[in-house]
Order: sequence, then C-alpha cells, then structure tokens
Amino acid sequence: MTGVTLPRKELFDIPEGVIYLDGNSLGVLPKGAAARATQVIENEWGGQLIKAWNTAGWMALPQVVGDTIAGLLGAPAGSVATGDTLSIKVYQALAAALKMRPDRRVILSDNGNFPSDLYMAQGLIDTIDKGYELRTPAPEDVAGAITEEVAVVMITQVDYRSGRMHDIKAITEKAHAMGAVMIWDLAHSAGAVPVDLTASNAEFAVGCSYKYLNGGPGAPAFIYVRPDIVDSIKPALSGWLGHDAPFAMELAYRPAMSTERMRVGTPPILQLAVLEQALKAWDGVQMADLRAASITLSETFIAEVERRCPQLSLASPRDPQSRGSQVSFGFEHGYAAMQALIDRGVIGDFRAPNIMRFGFTPLYLDEKDVVAAAEIIEDVINNELWRDAKYQTVSRVT
Amino acid sequence: MTGVTLPRKELFDIPEGVIYLDGNSLGVLPKGAAARATQVIENEWGGQLIKAWNTAGWMALPQVVGDTIAGLLGAPAGSVATGDTLSIKVYQALAAALKMRPDRRVILSDNGNFPSDLYMAQGLIDTIDKGYELRTPAPEDVAGAITEEVAVVMITQVDYRSGRMHDIKAITEKAHAMGAVMIWDLAHSAGAVPVDLTASNAEFAVGCSYKYLNGGPGAPAFIYVRPDIVDSIKPALSGWLGHDAPFAMELAYRPAMSTERMRVGTPPILQLAVLEQALKAWDGVQMADLRAASITLSETFIAEVERRCPQLSLASPRDPQSRGSQVSFGFEHGYAAMQALIDRGVIGDFRAPNIMRFGFTPLYLDEKDVVAAAEIIEDVINNELWRDAKYQTVSRVT
Repeated sequence: MTGVTLPRKELFDIPEGVIYLDGNSLGVLPKGAAARATQVIENEWGGQLIKAWNTAGWMALPQVVGDTIAGLLGAPAGSVATGDTLSIKVYQALAAALKMRPDRRVILSDNGNFPSDLYMAQGLIDTIDKGYELRTPAPEDVAGAITEEVAVVMITQVDYRSGRMHDIKAITEKAHAMGAVMIWDLAHSAGAVPVDLTASNAEFAVGCSYKYLNGGPGAPAFIYVRPDIVDSIKPALSGWLGHDAPFAMELAYRPAMSTERMRVGTPPILQLAVLEQALKAWDGVQMADLRAASITLSETFIAEVERRCPQLSLASPRDPQSRGSQVSFGFEHGYAAMQALIDRGVIGDFRAPNIMRFGFTPLYLDEKDVVAAAEIIEDVINNELWRDAKYQTVSRVT
Repeated sequence: MTGVTLPRKELFDIPEGVIYLDGNSLGVLPKGAAARATQVIENEWGGQLIKAWNTAGWMALPQVVGDTIAGLLGAPAGSVATGDTLSIKVYQALAAALKMRPDRRVILSDNGNFPSDLYMAQGLIDTIDKGYELRTPAPEDVAGAITEEVAVVMITQVDYRSGRMHDIKAITEKAHAMGAVMIWDLAHSAGAVPVDLTASNAEFAVGCSYKYLNGGPGAPAFIYVRPDIVDSIKPALSGWLGHDAPFAMELAYRPAMSTERMRVGTPPILQLAVLEQALKAWDGVQMADLRAASITLSETFIAEVERRCPQLSLASPRDPQSRGSQVSFGFEHGYAAMQALIDRGVIGDFRAPNIMRFGFTPLYLDEKDVVAAAEIIEDVINNELWRDAKYQTVSRVT
C-alpha cells in the first residue's frame, strides 16, 4: 500500500519565517484544532451541557483516541487507554508490573531515561517501602544488567537527550528470558519511528501525545497493556472511570475487563478533542515512509552542520538505525547558541548540561528546511552571534 | 465589603429555554472561554510554539490558577497546586497522610463518600499491602468512629447524592484530638459553600473545578496542603514538575519546597487557560452572599416541589445549614422522570438507585428559574409524563 506523500505542511499552521525543529518537545499546531476546540466549548459544552457526555460522544472519546494511537503503534483497537500525564501512566504500569512479580525487588532502568520516569519509580518504591531497588546503569549496559533479580525493566526507547534508540525486540526478549516484565516509554517514539507493540510482546507501553503526535500543550498521555494479561493486572490508581460500572456507584472497586481499567478520573475532554483533530494528520501515513523521510532529514542535517561547524560535536548515534527522529550536538555555549538560533527562527531546544537538540518531524519538514536551518546555525556558531549578552540569561524552556 | 450582585447571568452562555440545575456535575459555559481557548491555540501554541512555556506564561499557569482557587477557599496564595484529576489528588493526599502516621493502619471515610475516593484508597491499600484497612461507617457515625487507631480521616464534605454536609471544623478537631490526619474532598464545596481552610486546620484538601467553578469538561483538579507541613510531606506521585529543579534533569527526585511538590507531569494548558477564564466570574463575589443566595434558592425549590408533588420525598437534609448547594428527591421512577424533565429543559441528573438531583448555582440562577423548574416538575410528575417509552432506556449520564 502506498502512503500519502510527505511532508503534509498544508495540514499545519507554522509561523512564517520559522523552521521548527522542536516537534520532539511540543508539536506544531494542526489546522482545525481551534475550530474543534470552539465546537467542543460552544456547541457541546455550552449547547448540550451535561448531556454532551452522551450526545457529543465525550464518554467514548478517550477510547476513540486510544484506538487511533494504537493504530500508530502496531497495537490492536481496545489495547490503549488515554488520559492523565505520562508520569502517571509510568506509575500505573510500574505498580501493576511489580504486582506481577511479587518475589522480586529490582526495577531496572537506565541513567539516560527521562528523569520523571525515574522519579515516579522512586516515589512508588517509597510508597511501597519494602526494599525495592531502582538500578540505572548506562544505556549500553542495560541488556547485560537484566538478571533474574529484576522484576521490571522500564526503559524509554529513544533517549530524550541524544536520540539514541534501544532495540525493543532484543531487550524485551532478554527481559522475558530472565522472567522480568517489560515496560516501554514511547515518549520520543510514538509518531517518530515505527513501533510494533504486538510483535514486541512487551507487557506495557506508555507515552505522551504532545510531541510527535501534535496534541498541544498538556495533551493527554496513553498506556498500552498487552491484551492477554489486561484482565489480571491490578490498577494501583483505581479510579471510578476504570471501574467496570462507573455509574453503578458501588462502594468496592471492580476493574473494567479491558484496558479501560487503566483510566482513572474524569477525562480532559477539551484536550482529547484537540488531540483527536491532530491525529487526523496521520490518516494514510505509512510509518515506513515516515521513517525513511526522518532518516533523510537527520542525515542531511548532520552532514550540513558538521561540514559547516566543526565546533559542534555530534551527541547522537551516527548510525541512523540507532537513532530516533532527533539529532543532538554538544556545544559548550549551547544554551546561548540556542537562544540566538531561536531569535533567528530556527527553533530547537537545550538540555543541560550542553546539549543542543533538534527534532525532525517529516509530517511538516522537508530537506530545504533542514539546509536552511544549517545555514543559520553556521552563521550563529561561526560568527559567535551567541556571545550577545541577551542570550546569556537562563530562562526555563521545557 | 459589599460583593457584586448575584446572579451574574450576563457572564455565562446558557441555552435559551434551559433551566440548568446540574452545575454540581458540570458547570455552564462562561463567556470568553472559547475566545481564550482560541487565543491559546492560535496565538500561543500556533504562534509561539515551544517558547510559549515562557512567553505566554504557561509555566506559571498552574500556580496562577491555584492561587485563585485558594482565594475562594480561605487558603493563602501558594498553598494550592492544580492539575491531574480529583482521583489522582485523593491518592496523593492519602499516600502522604499515611506516611505521616507510620504506626497506624486505619483509613476512615464514610459510605456516602464519592466512590472514586474509596476506590483510590483501596488501590493505595493494595499497592502498599501492609494490612491497611478502609472503614466506611455511615456519614452520621463518622465522628464517633474516629479513634486513636485511625491514621487518616478522608471525607467529602458535601454528599454527592443527598447534599448532606459534614461540619469541617468539628470533624477536623476530632481527628486531630485522636492524632489523625485530616483530608477534605471539596468537590461539591468549592464555589458552592463558604470554606475556610486556614481556620479548619486540616492538613489536606482536594477538589475539582468542573462543577461549581465552571472550568469545563475534564477541567483540572486541585490539592491544598497546609503550609506549615508542606516541606515535610512525601509525594508518592513524584513527577518532574514537582521536583525542586525540573529542568536540571537530575536523576534523583528532590521535592520542591512548596505545594508545587504535589504537581506531577506536564500541565494541561488548554484546560487550565479555560479554567482561568471561568474563575473570573468569581471576581468580587462574597462567599457569604453566595451562600445566602444558595439557601434562598434551595429553600424555595423544596417548598415549591413539596407543595406540588407529594410523590417525591426529600432526600436532602431539611435544615439548610446541614445541606450543601444541591437538593435531592427520591422517586421510584426517578431515572425516567429526569429524562422527561431534561426533555422539557429542566436539567438535573440522576444517581442510582432512585435519586433525582438538582444543583443550585447562584452565579447564574435566580428564584424565577427555580419556580419555573418546579412548575415543570409538577407537570412531569403529576401527569406521569415520565411513562413515555422514550424515557425508559437507560443511557449513561455523568
């Protein structure tokens, strides 16, 4: 089957003069998002009020959106629940996974994981307070660190700083061989690289929708549970919308007999509706085409930047097969340099201590953008435009 | 100080021909909400992209909204964090409270509490798995059930079904006298009745913003922590935005030295912005005036309905001082009758097994509305309009 042609810039509103290389942090605005929000607010909330839970399909919306995300991840309909934030979904997956291996006490992650995943594990360990241990070897040592002591392997596939990509199949197989449960965080994978959750055989996956899926600031997270185990897993965050009969108002929790048990409270309808609109940009996109385009963009970028700016050192794997859809360069004055770039319309971001990070989103970027960005980087770096005092003040950028 | 005159119907968009008595479930649409959403989507997200976290004030928004909510609850600025759902906030408060009383094993609630609060307690108990016990006596027996075995008293002030209201001061004093930690769920209190959290001396309070605060479907929840203890409490859901330095990307969690430690993941900016707009309707409202208006509305409603429809039996306390801002009637055919009422523009809701529930929101209701609603109720009940087959099919209404 032939997919649609990429990029699809016509589906997005990108400001004039901006080359946006930060879709790995916050995706751009899909056309129709404001109209959808207005429809939800004025026609559904304003016009139908409480009835809208039924008449406007709000009750079904988390599952509708979950099914669309499932389709992008090689997962069957009904296997992905949406809502909350990614940190909450990490906690849910981890708590449920530990219950599956009651005799083991080790959670294995890596020190390249996104800090919030590690923080959530630390909070869960403190809450249970039974001697659990979080191990965080270097990413390249993870596979070797999976032993029969390990209850759960919890890994983010694509490193948020370097773009280094773990091998889902190999690590999941090793985890299972050692009797551990596997959780994948797909924050930088969903919509960025092909993922086949069914083939992976992993028990859990989690992710967010405001990066490559363009759901907007604070868009809801998602959690996948392997269908054959979902009916036996114990939700730690056992909220009413994960109950088998939320409106029966029973006093005792009975989990829904589906992935719905991973839902917690009242869903964020406005954000879900905007996300649903955003996901329409994926209609007809073949993930293999997306990946090919992503590699072309990132290879072009690396070649152009390295040729122009020897001061920058590649902080991402050189082999595109080991890289997600972002490229990072280390540069001592990276913070100031990124501010200078942003001032000139090339928007990437900075991650401490010295990483300049650039995301590649084939839905709305082409090779001309990448070459143009490299030219501006050359100007900023080689002419030391970042030395301007106004770029030295540190302000928070997510 | 004299407050603004109530109601303030001009600040809301309510459909023609509707008398909305379900603001205790989902508040009506505040004017300006769609415009604010459009501004966030098109100007901030679309126009400023990732920079909007700083330039559009997104990073500060959860705290700005929290401070406004704090002001409505007699709590100081900085004591209320916003985000997530109410169920998540219940879990956070409960987990932190249990850590404060490590030698006790009883969580005391009541069987009139909203089920999700009980479910979250059950999930936490299963997660910790150290013999904790959830006790749920009848609401009228709660005070007597607070013993020195109790670690935490977790109560919803206003009963979601009957509107019965607990005495915050008396129960908190009893809890403290017995050495227990106090958590109040203010879901049906915030924006409905005067609350003075500082005077209460309670350690925690939680609530939602889509009911009387009109934040829209799935609007974020809030959590209050008493300022003198916040620096010592342990967040179970230790996400990166509760970290003292979220962007330092440290590997170990260090909680923020403020209520911010109760934040978890990336905030739902779109929903927060709409909520911020909704909260403007509270500018200048005196809670004493609101309470007086609420009592007038509910007393009028009870008198009018009882006079017209002896078939309905009051399921709320008759004494307005013991009642929140809702009135419930028991009626065997309550589900069908509510559908018939909704068809005629009087929107309340139904709670199993037989409760017809009507909320009173003085921001946008006056006595004429209440009398008109009673007339329609009389028509539906006395002429048995609810017998129509189309009102018998059960569909889910939140």
